[in-house]
Amino acid sequence: VRIVLLSGGTGKRLWPLSNDSRSKQFLKVLKNMDNQFESMVQRVWRQISNYGHGLDAYVVTNQSQVEMIQNQLGEQVKIIVEPSSRDTFPAISLASLYLHYVESVSKDETIIVSPVDPYVNDDFFYFFDKLDAAAQHADSEIVLLGVKPTGPSEKYGYIVPKEKCSKKELRKVKCFVEKPDQSRADQLIGSGALWNCGVFAFRLGYLLALINKKYGYVDYLDLLQHYNSKLPKISFDYEVVEKAQNVHVIEYPGTWKDIGTWNALTEEMNTNTYGNVYMSQDTTNTHVINELEVPITVLGCKDMIVVATYDGILVSEKDASQRLKEVMKNYSNIPMYVERLWGNYKIVDFVKTEVATTLTKRVFIKEAKNLSYHVHYKRTETWTIVSGQGIVVIDDRMIYVGSGDSVHIKPGQYHSIKALKDLEFIEVQCGEDLANDIERKCLAWDDVMEHLGMCHEEKKG
Amino acid sequence: VRIVLLSGGTGKRLWPLSNDSRSKQFLKVLKNMDNQFESMVQRVWRQISNYGHGLDAYVVTNQSQVEMIQNQLGEQVKIIVEPSSRDTFPAISLASLYLHYVESVSKDETIIVSPVDPYVNDDFFYFFDKLDAAAQHADSEIVLLGVKPTGPSEKYGYIVPKEKCSKKELRKVKCFVEKPDQSRADQLIGSGALWNCGVFAFRLGYLLALINKKYGYVDYLDLLQHYNSKLPKISFDYEVVEKAQNVHVIEYPGTWKDIGTWNALTEEMNTNTYGNVYMSQDTTNTHVINELEVPITVLGCKDMIVVATYDGILVSEKDASQRLKEVMKNYSNIPMYVERLWGNYKIVDFVKTEVATTLTKRVFIKEAKNLSYHVHYKRTETWTIVSGQGIVVIDDRMIYVGSGDSVHIKPGQYHSIKALKDLEFIEVQCGEDLANDIERKCLAWDDVMEHLGMCHEEKKG
Repeated sequence: VRIVLLSGGTGKRLWPLSNDSRSKQFLKVLKNMDNQFESMVQRVWRQISNYGHGLDAYVVTNQSQVEMIQNQLGEQVKIIVEPSSRDTFPAISLASLYLHYVESVSKDETIIVSPVDPYVNDDFFYFFDKLDAAAQHADSEIVLLGVKPTGPSEKYGYIVPKEKCSKKELRKVKCFVEKPDQSRADQLIGSGALWNCGVFAFRLGYLLALINKKYGYVDYLDLLQHYNSKLPKISFDYEVVEKAQNVHVIEYPGTWKDIGTWNALTEEMNTNTYGNVYMSQDTTNTHVINELEVPITVLGCKDMIVVATYDGILVSEKDASQRLKEVMKNYSNIPMYVERLWGNYKIVDFVKTEVATTLTKRVFIKEAKNLSYHVHYKRTETWTIVSGQGIVVIDDRMIYVGSGDSVHIKPGQYHSIKALKDLEFIEVQCGEDLANDIERKCLAWDDVMEHLGMCHEEKKG
Repeated sequence: VRIVLLSGGTGKRLWPLSNDSRSKQFLKVLKNMDNQFESMVQRVWRQISNYGHGLDAYVVTNQSQVEMIQNQLGEQVKIIVEPSSRDTFPAISLASLYLHYVESVSKDETIIVSPVDPYVNDDFFYFFDKLDAAAQHADSEIVLLGVKPTGPSEKYGYIVPKEKCSKKELRKVKCFVEKPDQSRADQLIGSGALWNCGVFAFRLGYLLALINKKYGYVDYLDLLQHYNSKLPKISFDYEVVEKAQNVHVIEYPGTWKDIGTWNALTEEMNTNTYGNVYMSQDTTNTHVINELEVPITVLGCKDMIVVATYDGILVSEKDASQRLKEVMKNYSNIPMYVERLWGNYKIVDFVKTEVATTLTKRVFIKEAKNLSYHVHYKRTETWTIVSGQGIVVIDDRMIYVGSGDSVHIKPGQYHSIKALKDLEFIEVQCGEDLANDIERKCLAWDDVMEHLGMCHEEKKG
């Protein structure tokens, strides 16, 4: 069995903690058994690994999430990168073709697809084995996992089986109903319907044959090179599941939650406040998350969510927080907090005047990591080292730096920095236009050093 | 007549808009008739000036507020500076001695004392003339202005006249009652009591004689030099008013408000949001003030106050905001936004590690103003110019700077900067300990230039 975890999504529903660089699945707001904060992705990864499927799992995502996933799950995690963000049919097809053509996975093997961030108990993954067995033995094309509803929710999709209820673990699916109103949901549940949690299994050969039949012969490199044109931008549900003749469902009776709103998320938090927060004793059913250094004081509030980050501040009545995605849909701003494989940065100040834009960042580089060797043409940069030790390269010159040191980089000067010990510095960018003004010469430090060697030789010669 | 405006107060009741550097009277949250924001101090000053008393007025305050008052009222405003913050008896005594011994004001002239920030209509100042006349003609020692109560408030002090109500404008005062409970307040109002708004008048000679009789001969310089010991730290009410034999009161029937809480302040604001704020339509009776660049999104709130500044974030139910002073009483932090005569600065980032503390400021210097010529011994400073033009002096060397330029100042190097045009720059301070590490050589730019001339001559010689 191979497990394909889909990681997508933009950052609006849990703004301002999520942004265009940090989707909800990466937010470290849940506590694990050791009382340490973990993200939804980390929680699922831990559960899958504990269940022994760590080596069978692949994460499918786009370029913008790769470094975040490596930071959170470790650099050895197997990632299949979409060339661009499309929909689940192309994404699952890309993963399937990769498994067959690159990893030589047999057409008989089961592929289990799951979102990367369901909030479930460990027993959820026991059902992956049942999906595998069903995909192998039944004459079914697709086997779905259906969650036993805990109430007539209007937010979910429902899987309606042919038989209302039976002793058979595997039931044939009659139809699907998306987000019914409450009375229809009640009716559906009465007839044995289950919530669609986006988890399903199929034999690899089934999908490959389907793709070849409808879109002609496609291998992994074909799809990778023509990702935007080869397959339609459509969900796997529409393109495959709802058109299939033999779809079965297995009922999962345990905990499953879609933590996609602040209201749902705060229900799973073990603490009411996070960060520098004072909350008065008469404040009730209120959660406050503060990622800033300055304090938040909350007095006499009821049923509220308050979240303050470098990206902005949310103050919402709990139920109203469901409307956040709609409210923020036209809002776009550069992400103020960004994680990279080499570390992270926060934009702490931003000034735009008629003559120039100035952006001030606090940058953290992990020990032994480095920035690329790159150049800007329309800005100056000034770095002041806060703590740690590092090597700065500017125009082929090396400078060792530590706390209090400062370097100034002029437009046109290639530059890079490597952390010898965990390194923090303040970067002040100043220029007419800070957007899209970067050219990279090389990424790895060895290449920077090799380049320097060449330069020195050139100079000698 | 001379008008003495008392400006004191710390910054807790309207935190986080007020801080230890910016008291509530200086917050620009009220709108004038031209729809421009003005502070309570500016409003009172405009009213007094319109009434023709601008040249008669003096502001008494401590050193920490001098530059703020000059910024808001203009540098020509007459300020009497207390050597330290004590109470109203020493402060009013200092002002009275100053007027007599420095400005040669006659002992027969009337002194009117008022807080610098009552929220009143213009007709309030018409009553200043009545106070003056009463102080001159009656055989009274002190004449108070009493506000006609609009309800049995528990927050004010009450002036109880001997006669319940009379056609006489000037009534003798029987006693004072501080913050009575509601039923007592009702009873007091029934017997003609008025609110004490801290405005009163006396003949200069009366107070001078009182001081001399009780504390021996004291002139202005005496008191200035021995401010902490010469007179007790006590309020003028306790030391003078409540002990006087002949105290009269004049009734003021118009608008008077003490805007000392967020709840009271928001009632006077012409707008529900200030700054980068999105508020959902179903949000009711809610005020949001955002001094940050990043957005605040408010969804579904009711009767709330949300205030975000560089100093912190307040989220409070409106009535609960009265408890802010109590809640914040043990909180102290360096002010993150500070106004100076030369401009202002914001602390935009603050990092403390084991090896060093790093403080990042955005500094604004007004055209033709300059910082003092000063030195630090335990920190480096790096300035990156955002916009404007200026002259930097480091260790007697002059450098012209503009947008994108950067200068690095090492420990032990004297430095200064002057704005040739409105100048904004990012300052990154980095050192073991940033507190109390400054020595100033001179303040005025002419002195810096003169010093440079000397240095250059020394070098020539």
